[in-house]
Amino acid sequence: PKIVTLPGDGIGPEVTSAAVEVLREVAPDITIEEHAIGGGAYDAYGDPLPQRTRDALQDADAVLLGTVGGAHTSPWNNLPRHLRPESGLLALRKALGCYANLRPVRVQPGLEHLSPLKPELARGVDILIVRELLGGIYFDGDRKIEGDTAYNTMRYTTAEVERVAKVAFWAAEQRKGRVTSVDKANVLEVSELWRRDVQALRDREYRSIHLNHEYVDSVAMLIVSDPARYDVIVTENLFGDILSDLAAVIPGSLGLMPSASLGDGPGLFEPIHGSAPDIAGQGIANPAAAIMSVGMMLRHSLQRSDAANVVDRAVALALREHPTRDLGGRADTRTFTRAVLEAMG
Amino acid sequence: PKIVTLPGDGIGPEVTSAAVEVLREVAPDITIEEHAIGGGAYDAYGDPLPQRTRDALQDADAVLLGTVGGAHTSPWNNLPRHLRPESGLLALRKALGCYANLRPVRVQPGLEHLSPLKPELARGVDILIVRELLGGIYFDGDRKIEGDTAYNTMRYTTAEVERVAKVAFWAAEQRKGRVTSVDKANVLEVSELWRRDVQALRDREYRSIHLNHEYVDSVAMLIVSDPARYDVIVTENLFGDILSDLAAVIPGSLGLMPSASLGDGPGLFEPIHGSAPDIAGQGIANPAAAIMSVGMMLRHSLQRSDAANVVDRAVALALREHPTRDLGGRADTRTFTRAVLEAMG
Ligand SMILES: CC(C)[C@H](C(=O)O)[C@@H](O)C(=O)O
Ligand SMILES: CC(C)[C@H](C(=O)O)[C@@H](O)C(=O)O
Repeated sequence: PKIVTLPGDGIGPEVTSAAVEVLREVAPDITIEEHAIGGGAYDAYGDPLPQRTRDALQDADAVLLGTVGGAHTSPWNNLPRHLRPESGLLALRKALGCYANLRPVRVQPGLEHLSPLKPELARGVDILIVRELLGGIYFDGDRKIEGDTAYNTMRYTTAEVERVAKVAFWAAEQRKGRVTSVDKANVLEVSELWRRDVQALRDREYRSIHLNHEYVDSVAMLIVSDPARYDVIVTENLFGDILSDLAAVIPGSLGLMPSASLGDGPGLFEPIHGSAPDIAGQGIANPAAAIMSVGMMLRHSLQRSDAANVVDRAVALALREHPTRDLGGRADTRTFTRAVLEAMG
Repeated sequence: PKIVTLPGDGIGPEVTSAAVEVLREVAPDITIEEHAIGGGAYDAYGDPLPQRTRDALQDADAVLLGTVGGAHTSPWNNLPRHLRPESGLLALRKALGCYANLRPVRVQPGLEHLSPLKPELARGVDILIVRELLGGIYFDGDRKIEGDTAYNTMRYTTAEVERVAKVAFWAAEQRKGRVTSVDKANVLEVSELWRRDVQALRDREYRSIHLNHEYVDSVAMLIVSDPARYDVIVTENLFGDILSDLAAVIPGSLGLMPSASLGDGPGLFEPIHGSAPDIAGQGIANPAAAIMSVGMMLRHSLQRSDAANVVDRAVALALREHPTRDLGGRADTRTFTRAVLEAMG
C-alpha cells in the first residue's frame, strides 16, 4: 500500500514525522511519499494544493496530513481566498471525495483532570462526531461578496445527506447503536430536508439504530452539561465544524484528538489541532493526535485493526508515563515518540 | 409607560406573573396589558402571533415575553412552519424591529459550584453576547425545500452589520472596552463582509474599543476552556444562536439567564430558558430569569437604572437565601418571588 504524507505548516512536519516513525514500525511494508500542502506549498509552487501533490494522490491508499496555516499575522492571510493555506485543505477534501469526517472524543481513564469540565461530567465520555465534509455552505457555488452585500448558500441534496448518514449508522452499529442527528429544523428548510432524509434512511435500512433529532443550539448546551448522553452525533458541515471543535475541548487537550475523513477514494487522516506557529520547530509539540490518526488510518483505510490496537494502546501508555507539556508533563516530541515505539514492543 | 406581556406556553405564564409582580412593585405607575403568543395563541386564534397582539405592540414601550412552544410530542410541531409556536417568536422579533439580542452571561459569586466547568474556570465569568437577530439565514427569503434538494441563504448587508456592531461597541464602552467579533471568514464571503464592516466601523467611530476577530469554531472551544478571555462578543444570527446557548450553560442553570432584544421600536425582554412543559403548572419553575429580564427592561427601555439595580440586588440575595430546585434548593416559584419582593424592601 502507498501512503501520501502532507506535513504542511507550523508543527505539522514535526508531528507528521513522529507519526511516520510509528507507521513504519507497525507496517514496514508500506510505501510513503511526502508532498507539499498549505502555506509552504504556496510559497514553493504558488498553490496551496499544487498539481504534483494532486497527481500523487491518484494511486494513494490513504493520506496522512499534518497541519496547515500560519500565525494571525502571517502574510498568507492576506492572499486572495483561493490561495490561502485553508483553501489547500478544502481542495484536498474535495479532491479525495471525503464526505464523512469522523472525530472520536474520548476522555482517557486517568486523564479526567485535564478536562475543563468537572471530572464527574468528563469521566467516561465517548462520543463519535460524524461531520458532513463536502456539502452545505462550505462548497456551494452560489456565493458572492459585492459592494455592501454578501451571501452564501447552505444547500443539501438527499444523496449527500444519505451517504454521510450511512457512515453514522454503520459506526453506531459498532458502538452503542444510538445516533443523534443535529439540525435547525425549526428555522431552516435545508434542515427539514436533512431531518426527513436521515429519518427515512433509518426507517428503511437501519431499524436497529436508535435515532433522535436535536437542535444545534440545544446540542451546544448539552454536550457541555451532559456529554454522557451522546454516542454518535451526525450533522452537516458548518454545524459539525462548530460542534466537533466544541466537543474536542472535553478531553482537555487538542493534542489528543485524531480524525479520519472517509469517502469514495483514499481516506484522509489528521490531528485536529492547529499549526501552532508559536511553538513550531522547537521539538516540543505533542504528536499524540498525529500518531492516533495513524491508528485510524490502519483501521479504516488499511484494514489492519490489530496494528491499530497496538498503536492505540501504546499511545495511551505513553500518555500516562511520559505526558507532554500541553498535558502538564515534561516530555518533548522525541521522548514521547520513543515511549510510544517502546510500548509497541 | 405601557408594557405588553406575552406569557406564552408551558411555564411562561408562571414566570411572567412572578416578573409582573416585581415590576408592579418597583414601578407602580406602569400600565400592563397581557396578550397571546405561541402555541396557545394558535389554539385560540389560529395564529402564533395574532393580529390583536400585533395591534397592542403599536404603542407599547417594552414587551415582556414568557416562553413559547410545547413538548417534543406536541401536535404544534406538526403544523406548517409558519403556524408553529417558534414562528410567533420570529414574527414578534421582526414586528418589533429588534435587531440586537443582548445576553449577559455572569457567574454569580458563591454560585460557581453550579457550573459544569471547574470552579476556577467559572469564577468571575462576565460576558455579554450581542447576537444579530433579524438578518442572516433566519429571515432571508431565498429559501426552498423541493423534492430532493433544499437550501437557505445567509445574507448580510453593511447596514445590518453596522447597526448591531454599534450596539456591541456601545455596550463595551460601559464595560471593559473589548469586543470580539465572531465569524467564519476563512470560508464564507458573508463573513468577509461582516469582518470588514465591523472593523471599518471600529476604525471610524470607536477607536477606544479593542476589537479582535475570531472564528466561530475556535470561539466554541475557548468559551468553554477559557471564558474569562471574553468581554463583549458580537456575531451574526445563527452563530449567535449557538454561542449564546453554549455560553448560557456556564452559570449552571438556564433559570438564571435573562435577555434583551433592542432595535428601533420597543425592546423585547425574555428569559432564555424554554417552556419546560414537563414542570408547567406545578408552581415550581424558577422565575429568576424572567425577573432579571424585568431588570434589563427597566435599564434599557425605561431608563430607570436605579430600579434595575434594586431588582438585580434583590434577585442575587434571593438566589443565595431561597434557591429554587434547579439550583439544588427547595424554594418554589411563590417562595422565591416573595423573597425577591422582601429583599427589595
Ligand atoms: C480551516 C478550516 C477551513 C477548517 C474547516 O472549517 O473545515 C477547520 O476549521 C476544520 O474544522 O478542519
Ligand atoms: C426557537 C428558535 C427559533 C430561537 C432561535 O433560534 O432564535 C431560539 O433558539 C432562541 O435562541 O431564541
